[in-house]
Amino acid sequence: MAENKVFIFDTTLRDGEQVPGCKLNTSEKIELALKLEELGVDIIEAGFPISSPGDFHSVDEISKIIKNATVCGLTRAVQKDIEVAAEALKNAKKPRIHTGIGTSDYHIKSKFNSTREEILKRAIQAVKWAKKFVDDVEFYAEDAGRTENEYLAKVVEAVIGAGATVVNIPDTTGYCLPYQYGEKIAYLTKNVKNIDKAIISCHCHNDLGLATANSIAGVIAGARQIECTVNGLGERAGNTSMEECVMILKQHKHLGFYTGIKTELLNPMSRLVSETMRMPVQPNKAIVGSNAFSHSSGIHQDGFLKDSLTYEIINPEEVGADGSKIVLTARSGRSALAFRLQKIGYEFTRNDIDVIYERFLKVADTKKEVVESDLHELAKTYLVSVAAV
Amino acid sequence: MAENKVFIFDTTLRDGEQVPGCKLNTSEKIELALKLEELGVDIIEAGFPISSPGDFHSVDEISKIIKNATVCGLTRAVQKDIEVAAEALKNAKKPRIHTGIGTSDYHIKSKFNSTREEILKRAIQAVKWAKKFVDDVEFYAEDAGRTENEYLAKVVEAVIGAGATVVNIPDTTGYCLPYQYGEKIAYLTKNVKNIDKAIISCHCHNDLGLATANSIAGVIAGARQIECTVNGLGERAGNTSMEECVMILKQHKHLGFYTGIKTELLNPMSRLVSETMRMPVQPNKAIVGSNAFSHSSGIHQDGFLKDSLTYEIINPEEVGADGSKIVLTARSGRSALAFRLQKIGYEFTRNDIDVIYERFLKVADTKKEVVESDLHELAKTYLVSVAAV
Repeated sequence: MAENKVFIFDTTLRDGEQVPGCKLNTSEKIELALKLEELGVDIIEAGFPISSPGDFHSVDEISKIIKNATVCGLTRAVQKDIEVAAEALKNAKKPRIHTGIGTSDYHIKSKFNSTREEILKRAIQAVKWAKKFVDDVEFYAEDAGRTENEYLAKVVEAVIGAGATVVNIPDTTGYCLPYQYGEKIAYLTKNVKNIDKAIISCHCHNDLGLATANSIAGVIAGARQIECTVNGLGERAGNTSMEECVMILKQHKHLGFYTGIKTELLNPMSRLVSETMRMPVQPNKAIVGSNAFSHSSGIHQDGFLKDSLTYEIINPEEVGADGSKIVLTARSGRSALAFRLQKIGYEFTRNDIDVIYERFLKVADTKKEVVESDLHELAKTYLVSVAAV
Repeated sequence: MAENKVFIFDTTLRDGEQVPGCKLNTSEKIELALKLEELGVDIIEAGFPISSPGDFHSVDEISKIIKNATVCGLTRAVQKDIEVAAEALKNAKKPRIHTGIGTSDYHIKSKFNSTREEILKRAIQAVKWAKKFVDDVEFYAEDAGRTENEYLAKVVEAVIGAGATVVNIPDTTGYCLPYQYGEKIAYLTKNVKNIDKAIISCHCHNDLGLATANSIAGVIAGARQIECTVNGLGERAGNTSMEECVMILKQHKHLGFYTGIKTELLNPMSRLVSETMRMPVQPNKAIVGSNAFSHSSGIHQDGFLKDSLTYEIINPEEVGADGSKIVLTARSGRSALAFRLQKIGYEFTRNDIDVIYERFLKVADTKKEVVESDLHELAKTYLVSVAAV
């Protein structure tokens, strides 16, 4: 079954942390790294050591404390970057250096003013430098999403030949459609001769809202690692959401994949990251939003109360969320009203509910949500009116 | 080219508004409806008239005021619902009744305690009732995502036969993977004999983060209407995000589709909906999040400053967002620092920047973001130190 494991590579502390306002100090990073390990993440990208003294220090400290997960440090394809990363990772039990270079023509020309041949040489050289320090070397082909497949395959084959254990195919600008990203991964699995010697990794961005779908398309096509962040944090529109990918693989068992994530810790992890990194999660965020398991419309509530599977595919407990909520609004129906009244101790007949429901709608039209105190009021007014008859 | 238009059906005022805390009064609904029309939405689902007196009133008022867009009211497959919706829509220039019933076995058994044959009859009957009042009748096959394709095709063919002009295939629980949803739509285009007499509509939910990808997969497979909300608002994890779908179709011109949306109004619309409905948009939301066009890491900033296409696929002005931001953090590089210093009037040589950059990193390690006042401080301190030499 080992071939069906999908490795979860968390980059909340690197790609997530580079978001404006999300900067963490070393002790905050250590706290999150320990929680990520407890969550069951396979690889923790702890930082970009050469980028600042603070980042170096954080990667160094996280390397000392993490026991089971691989600790990874980012570098450019530059010797000094790699040496500094190796130094920061020297105490890690399972160190990984993540090095790479832009491979799309946009990057080769605008950013490096270089040629495909030159970039290929620099890619190979970077992996060789990294291999001097660690066995586990991941290579990223930046902007792979816009890199022509034939050239990309050539680069991937060369870096695997140089010792790369993981090849990361980033859709850096969040440009790909799921079928395109899937085809790119499928192309590599078919056309790179030594592809069996490395794991293909998906690293997607959410500029068009497709990061999760692209990552899953990549896995279906042959990738076995997803690079993601908690809450989908990351530059611009963010990275792939860990919680979404993990739950898709768990829910769609027919795909035949599994991850090592303890899903019941997903919501506590989400809250911790949101608070520590000061980045709010919108209520309608999948899996971890505060409304993710709230039902308010009458049709939905009625169906849900008869059988939760009618409207809910995930049991909230499975992802560590509070139980499903039945929220009363002007859109709620009689069954939801009866359910909520029953929960606070009122047993009414159908005829009673019909009468109370008319009054309930009038209250609901004047406010966002009908809360418990309103229900007591409605119930008592009704009981008094009936007693008076 | 008419066959390549994708109709945008906005349900912010119906499926979005039924979210806890999002309730709107009639004047707020009218304001949003007018803005939706200005944005270029083809169909405005204004409410569910029978659900409450307030909702009836809103649909009635919106019907009177909207000139170009179709105004749509939701109903169950119930005669009274349809009569009330028709009454609410009676002043609309282009009225549409949206009726339907659950077609998955979950819904048929748990919710209706019924049979497939009975549900089929009720579906046909509902469309016939609606046809007495309006020409434009949309039928929804609720939980189509979990409905067996053969039965679904039978229902779709029957309701088109009864006069439905649009057939809505909702993935009510947000369960489908993009390839599955695409295959479902493709199945209908192939197996429903009269499918050319109706438009297929995608109505997806975001429980697994796939609503946008599913809608696009549906369009590629033959659908020509997307049901969506501004900011992806909606029950639980929300509905499909209008802004994401519209920009995917615009960016990926090779697909050959277009919408009538004025994309430069997407960000103003997003802010208005967020404020009016009191639902925050997370900073890392695609297209409309406050960070959607922010660059902070050194590698990204450097590439972006050389050529914005290196890291950005959408011009912020195209979606009415503020210009791309270069935010300075501990992850920023020398080119971003020089760029920001230049913007506030300091011209430094490369050697100057090297010295200032070291001091900048020390400041950046102590705070989330290096702001303009810090830059003045850094520049002045440097100028003083150089003058002193």
